Amino acid sequence: LDDELLDAAQAKLDNKTKPLGSLGRLEDFARRVVAITGSLAPETGKKIIFTFAGDHGVVEEGVSAFPKEVTPQMVLNFLRGGAGVNVLARHAGAEVRVVDIGVDYDFAPQPGLIIRKIAPGTKNLSIGPAMTRAEAIAAIEVGIELARSAKEEGAAMIATGEMGIGNTTPSSAIIAAFSGISPRELTHRGTGIDDAALDRKVSAIERGLKVNAPDVADPLDVLAKVGGLEIAGIAGLVLGGAACRLPVVVDGFISTAGALIACELNPDVGQYLFAAHHSVEIGHRVMLERMKLEPILDLKMRLGEGTGAALAMGLIEAGVKILKEMASFEEAGVTQSNT
Amino acid sequence: LDDELLDAAQAKLDNKTKPLGSLGRLEDFARRVVAITGSLAPETGKKIIFTFAGDHGVVEEGVSAFPKEVTPQMVLNFLRGGAGVNVLARHAGAEVRVVDIGVDYDFAPQPGLIIRKIAPGTKNLSIGPAMTRAEAIAAIEVGIELARSAKEEGAAMIATGEMGIGNTTPSSAIIAAFSGISPRELTHRGTGIDDAALDRKVSAIERGLKVNAPDVADPLDVLAKVGGLEIAGIAGLVLGGAACRLPVVVDGFISTAGALIACELNPDVGQYLFAAHHSVEIGHRVMLERMKLEPILDLKMRLGEGTGAALAMGLIEAGVKILKEMASFEEAGVTQSNT
Repeated sequence: LDDELLDAAQAKLDNKTKPLGSLGRLEDFARRVVAITGSLAPETGKKIIFTFAGDHGVVEEGVSAFPKEVTPQMVLNFLRGGAGVNVLARHAGAEVRVVDIGVDYDFAPQPGLIIRKIAPGTKNLSIGPAMTRAEAIAAIEVGIELARSAKEEGAAMIATGEMGIGNTTPSSAIIAAFSGISPRELTHRGTGIDDAALDRKVSAIERGLKVNAPDVADPLDVLAKVGGLEIAGIAGLVLGGAACRLPVVVDGFISTAGALIACELNPDVGQYLFAAHHSVEIGHRVMLERMKLEPILDLKMRLGEGTGAALAMGLIEAGVKILKEMASFEEAGVTQSNT
Repeated sequence: LDDELLDAAQAKLDNKTKPLGSLGRLEDFARRVVAITGSLAPETGKKIIFTFAGDHGVVEEGVSAFPKEVTPQMVLNFLRGGAGVNVLARHAGAEVRVVDIGVDYDFAPQPGLIIRKIAPGTKNLSIGPAMTRAEAIAAIEVGIELARSAKEEGAAMIATGEMGIGNTTPSSAIIAAFSGISPRELTHRGTGIDDAALDRKVSAIERGLKVNAPDVADPLDVLAKVGGLEIAGIAGLVLGGAACRLPVVVDGFISTAGALIACELNPDVGQYLFAAHHSVEIGHRVMLERMKLEPILDLKMRLGEGTGAALAMGLIEAGVKILKEMASFEEAGVTQSNT
């Protein structure tokens, strides 16, 4: 990011009617949005959450508390506006677009649904590669394209979200691969599995890493072998957003796995990202530290879909409005501090 | 709060299309608003921030980085919509009402300004009582009345805010009195004072506690002797809100000092409160622990005015909307978890 833009934004903030720095992270949000977009009065308003949906072959190992059919059921719930992300997106004034990038179900075309299916789900990563390298690249390209079209439509900010029964398993596998931390230590209960299912999940990840031996120097190899189609789509959205100077808000654990792939491909991408929230998933903190991102909210949420991103978008936008709408000392006729 | 209402709200939340408890604190917000208001589908929409303004005699001890004239200047800034709280309130869909409860300046009547001046500022608390007991009670009554009228107007939620150059000094004095922690340990740099001013601030509080010897078994005595008029108004708003079953969002450090007075008068009041955010002021955490409140946001803000409350109101409202707007498993045709 451009230091001159960061400084110009801070100078503008420092002239607002408030003690220096007293709006804390809101000022940081404003400064970064200025440097990302290249405007000292960045647009607000149009905000789009892309919720990528995909299925996971590894579900046959019994790693999730919900059956696989819940993925398409939830996609239909998103399209009817009844899911958590719909409620929170409406609250934040954001639009939800659902991307079928890999659901094992054939949806009829309908408003709000973007059908860009690369495959009807991944293969079981515990016994072989989840995807081919070509599939992973194609899924990334979907995300890049969506970010680009959002920019062309005039979006001020975009965000990631996901739905995919079983998708904390590939996410944990990705972070285990990059961090070298054991799956046992990193793996959490996802949507709420019991001890036996947790053991199956850890075992599936351990076997997957062993049988696939992903090459961490080649992030696409990690993504293809132990990732997921929605995770690849998110990685693409993040890369595409950064490339066209759009702030990208990264939701929780699974979205962060996608963002991590993007950052491993190009570490500069991290500067364009906002981490929405702390997740209760153990591996999440490890990934955020790796990307040098500090989460905005900590509301003990673990739903995914883009729910945390919806709330964080509202806070980032608040920071931009401070920059644009607050009066300066001169405008307001307020005496400045003596220090 | 009514346990049956809390349970009924949780049962409704548990039937929404999401893993149990996965919306974390948003679910807690919804549950508490249900129990506070007595409705399983609480109203959202009308939100009012009361920003109480008052001056402080202790400013003559050189405890603030800003001169006293900034209090009325900022009131005028609020009324023109140019201050931080105005920007963030507009963002959250909340209204700001400014209450002149003790500014040393005569404002012309104007829209958005409620003139209920008890005195033109407090006296210098470092050499004697800040207020008489009658003044403190009158200021509390103003707050109670404003909460009641907000309820009658149909407000769904109210919040506290304040403006008063020098008002971190009485706030620190109040918490030092109740906690027994030394002023040196508790006192922070407020709007950004230097070492010499910090020493003057600590000394003013130490002298004030010594000369006034406030009786902590009598919270009104503490308020009158080392408090402030805006702090008293906030205490009243909190008491009044709880009495008429309105959720009250408490802004940062100074507002929390007002809420603390209310909770010391009646400990049940705490259940009706939401602590907006962590403040960087050291005494803030001590007060929140005393009231058993967990702050919602941590954005390193230290502006006051109601800025943190405005952002927190948006998040509490998001929780209520989850309860009201999300589809149930049955409505959405989604299969439930197997656990």
